[in-house]
Amino acid sequence: MTSKKNLGQTRAIILIYSPDQPGLVAAVSDFISINHGNILYLEQHVDRQNHIFFMRVEWDLENFLIPREKIEDYFQTLYAQKLQLTFRLYFSDDIPRMALFVSKHSHCLFDILARYTAGEWNVELPIIISNHEDLRWVAEKFGIDFHVFDVKKDNKAEIEAQQIALLKEKKIDFIVLARYMQIVSENFINQYPNKIINIHHSFLPAFVGAKPYHAAYERGVKIIGATSHYVTTDLDAGPIIEQDVTRISHKNSVEDLVQRGKDLEKIVLSRAIESHINRRILVYRNRTILFS
Amino acid sequence: MTSKKNLGQTRAIILIYSPDQPGLVAAVSDFISINHGNILYLEQHVDRQNHIFFMRVEWDLENFLIPREKIEDYFQTLYAQKLQLTFRLYFSDDIPRMALFVSKHSHCLFDILARYTAGEWNVELPIIISNHEDLRWVAEKFGIDFHVFDVKKDNKAEIEAQQIALLKEKKIDFIVLARYMQIVSENFINQYPNKIINIHHSFLPAFVGAKPYHAAYERGVKIIGATSHYVTTDLDAGPIIEQDVTRISHKNSVEDLVQRGKDLEKIVLSRAIESHINRRILVYRNRTILFS
Amino acid sequence: MTSKKNLGQTRAIILIYSPDQPGLVAAVSDFISINHGNILYLEQHVDRQNHIFFMRVEWDLENFLIPREKIEDYFQTLYAQKLQLTFRLYFSDDIPRMALFVSKHSHCLFDILARYTAGEWNVELPIIISNHEDLRWVAEKFGIDFHVFDVKKDNKAEIEAQQIALLKEKKIDFIVLARYMQIVSENFINQYPNKIINIHHSFLPAFVGAKPYHAAYERGVKIIGATSHYVTTDLDAGPIIEQDVTRISHKNSVEDLVQRGKDLEKIVLSRAIESHINRRILVYRNRTILFS
Amino acid sequence: MTSKKNLGQTRAIILIYSPDQPGLVAAVSDFISINHGNILYLEQHVDRQNHIFFMRVEWDLENFLIPREKIEDYFQTLYAQKLQLTFRLYFSDDIPRMALFVSKHSHCLFDILARYTAGEWNVELPIIISNHEDLRWVAEKFGIDFHVFDVKKDNKAEIEAQQIALLKEKKIDFIVLARYMQIVSENFINQYPNKIINIHHSFLPAFVGAKPYHAAYERGVKIIGATSHYVTTDLDAGPIIEQDVTRISHKNSVEDLVQRGKDLEKIVLSRAIESHINRRILVYRNRTILFS
Repeated sequence: MTSKKNLGQTRAIILIYSPDQPGLVAAVSDFISINHGNILYLEQHVDRQNHIFFMRVEWDLENFLIPREKIEDYFQTLYAQKLQLTFRLYFSDDIPRMALFVSKHSHCLFDILARYTAGEWNVELPIIISNHEDLRWVAEKFGIDFHVFDVKKDNKAEIEAQQIALLKEKKIDFIVLARYMQIVSENFINQYPNKIINIHHSFLPAFVGAKPYHAAYERGVKIIGATSHYVTTDLDAGPIIEQDVTRISHKNSVEDLVQRGKDLEKIVLSRAIESHINRRILVYRNRTILFS
Repeated sequence: MTSKKNLGQTRAIILIYSPDQPGLVAAVSDFISINHGNILYLEQHVDRQNHIFFMRVEWDLENFLIPREKIEDYFQTLYAQKLQLTFRLYFSDDIPRMALFVSKHSHCLFDILARYTAGEWNVELPIIISNHEDLRWVAEKFGIDFHVFDVKKDNKAEIEAQQIALLKEKKIDFIVLARYMQIVSENFINQYPNKIINIHHSFLPAFVGAKPYHAAYERGVKIIGATSHYVTTDLDAGPIIEQDVTRISHKNSVEDLVQRGKDLEKIVLSRAIESHINRRILVYRNRTILFS
Repeated sequence: MTSKKNLGQTRAIILIYSPDQPGLVAAVSDFISINHGNILYLEQHVDRQNHIFFMRVEWDLENFLIPREKIEDYFQTLYAQKLQLTFRLYFSDDIPRMALFVSKHSHCLFDILARYTAGEWNVELPIIISNHEDLRWVAEKFGIDFHVFDVKKDNKAEIEAQQIALLKEKKIDFIVLARYMQIVSENFINQYPNKIINIHHSFLPAFVGAKPYHAAYERGVKIIGATSHYVTTDLDAGPIIEQDVTRISHKNSVEDLVQRGKDLEKIVLSRAIESHINRRILVYRNRTILFS
Repeated sequence: MTSKKNLGQTRAIILIYSPDQPGLVAAVSDFISINHGNILYLEQHVDRQNHIFFMRVEWDLENFLIPREKIEDYFQTLYAQKLQLTFRLYFSDDIPRMALFVSKHSHCLFDILARYTAGEWNVELPIIISNHEDLRWVAEKFGIDFHVFDVKKDNKAEIEAQQIALLKEKKIDFIVLARYMQIVSENFINQYPNKIINIHHSFLPAFVGAKPYHAAYERGVKIIGATSHYVTTDLDAGPIIEQDVTRISHKNSVEDLVQRGKDLEKIVLSRAIESHINRRILVYRNRTILFS
């Protein structure tokens, strides 16, 4: 099952960072203009504290003089090495492949599948992985492969090796932990650096770890939140992609928070996935630059 | 200088909590009705986890059969001891007296003074206390006494004793720390339990302590907040009264956060003050019941 | 297919309004207490401008002395006629039956089905009605009857008669227009007064009618919204149940607004449905009292 | 009285719009780079529906080869006429002069004065104009000239002529209507096109005209808002600069809405003023491009 959004002409997208220096915007936009590329979006940002330059440019390849397979090489040779640019080049018709990891909660899974089947995202979803059978019926409704791995304390390394093999076989580009209630190992994370998106059910860095709604209730906060972030080896401390919040009151029980939080979680996670798919996120020193 | 809002007839306000048991609403509303009081507002809440009943009732004293000076005694004798109620009784024409503590930032001070001089609040503000001279000109513009106490590491106990003496002399009912950059001692806090309102410039419990905007920037959050709370001996961990948040992005520097945060801080602090003045806050086990 | 949330003991819920007068809370809470009912929630509100009293009480029937089938009669005889109360009585184990009307957009439908199949709502959903075949596959995935009525300009009255017959046959209690792109007739509406919930894709009363996102774009607003409301014969002017908003900017095209609006629409509609199911809404003079 | 924020080196700011065409970013950034200007901020936006290109660039003049008084001429000759650019050039040390118009409400005035006296804005405020004496005491507290013009139905043209003369004499660059409860004439507006900022106390385009809070209450909305916009001859229909909203409920009276709305109004107006002062707003076809 495939969801491909018709996006017209193929576009190239380049994400760049480098030490800040005068002339960077001019240089990059010049590269595109003189080769007859039409810039569709250009956004730059300078982190003045650390003197780092960030940029995302998207351009139409229709009349571009450089063949797409040579763009990376040309840009590297003519600009990147000279200007100390670190860059990633993408093409809009390279459709990323996503794997979902779930446990028992269905709200994020449904939200993702609803968008996917409606063709909202330029992504493929070949596989859903879980540590429980509970959501198999959902995956099957939508005709997507569902694999259960019975993770236990003593077989984690072994299971993860099997999971990685399966992910490689399915040519997965990035992973979404859609309320997957397991901590993944350092080894697993290192296979997919800044390519595993998690949803944490609190307004991080408040309430790291398990049972954040209980902790929020105990602390008596007046607002709860949800946070999507890339997974790093530091638990719940990876680069934040999206956050959102909703107001609560003393009238709300822990169960109310859990219930209301679900709407936050699913929207915040889906927005993060969309930004990732559209190559709008650049990670630098544990913070995200989120281009619009 | 006095700000008194004309609020029509005198009203009585009672705040109650007790172990939950059937018949509490009926009993309390009955007490008022059979004595010809007209209930203006009634709000109750049951904490089902801890089985505690909370209630706030406000009624018109115009035709009330019990003289106001005897209400407390009658209610205690006839209801409270029988039903194990803990209660506080207030009258709308008893105007609370507020002291402000400030340091160098003026935004909260201006916001409070603007509301105070416009007569929005039923409060008296006889005194502003600071550890710096910087904001004397503001206090003087508004004709309010301004006292500077030069707090140092080795004279804190002594200075606080002087401050308490001054607060007692001025018959202060509650204290607002309007970006007062000093930690007050346990002894000071114990003089005004649940009567010292602080504004912390983060979405607590995230970023406790000093320099929360720097910490928020470092962590790369996408939303910042402010929190007003009662001061307890546990730093930044007292009962939360109000919180609010605003969205930020990677484009914002620490200075931007500081600047934007000011609007949050002043509104969140002023809302907490207003709720306190209007006797809408009940504290129970480090959480606030905030009646509407 | 049925979704029944286990809610423990059966509870009675009463929604009341009346001309304001002293003693109403005492009278109603007394009725429950003296008959050994345990009040679980009580919320009252007085509209001081129009002198109307509103109340919602929910109590446990476990030890209630009056048999459930006689409560309405007793309350009517002993209280309602004497105090001019208008009331509706519900029981928590009477599960309302909902019909969905859809057209081509799937986002609201998926959100409702996700909650329904997860058992979040105490509701039955026997039927989905549409004017197009497009979403039949979704209904079939979830095993729910899907009926298409080919509404045209000249057959509206006839089609609506068929729809009403079907709704009556299925014993439908209330209807949700989940982005159903047809205007329903006065006759249809009168069959279900305050029982048809619509989602309008704007922050009403701004942008009434068709193509609100285009209108919002043209007007250059910085925030867009969605509104759920009961359908009345006055287009998009019925009592508002829920609204929510999200921030946009000049960067967003009409298509962006349509896309972002979907998340608002589905959450705002689902919240309204939940409030309706839980008997928390009272309509008075085209405004809703939304008990918490 | 003057409020000048120390902003370091002088910067040039250019706001541009033009028909969209390839190479615009490259051309403009090149102009700055080849003349040794260091770009501090660059933001561009393309309105794809209307094929219009918008851009804001801010650069450091320290080593810029073109003398500041010749930049406009050079840019016009070398780029603007060739590329059909419409542009406005500003310098960071040209401090704009603002006039305030007020009536009786003090909340916006206090908020503006608090920021102004704290030195938050790079602006001069030589004069406050009113149609009432009520707020003279506020202006006098802050040492700012306060002029009352007794506007009546039959003297409006005459009074406005006097006001314009005064504004010209004081070299006013832009005007802020800080809850000024008068409609200004077409003639007046034409003197200051896109230079008069108004705050309307509703979420426009909902509740245009007088008494929006009453209208919001009657309609039963669940969220209220405030809107700052440039004044055009079409009442409350000028280009929107900023909007914000807050949640209300059936519990809130009209007076509550008025009270809560004040916090929205003052923040939304002050944000608009700040954007205007910082040359971040470009108006095109009754919509604002609000650069960040």
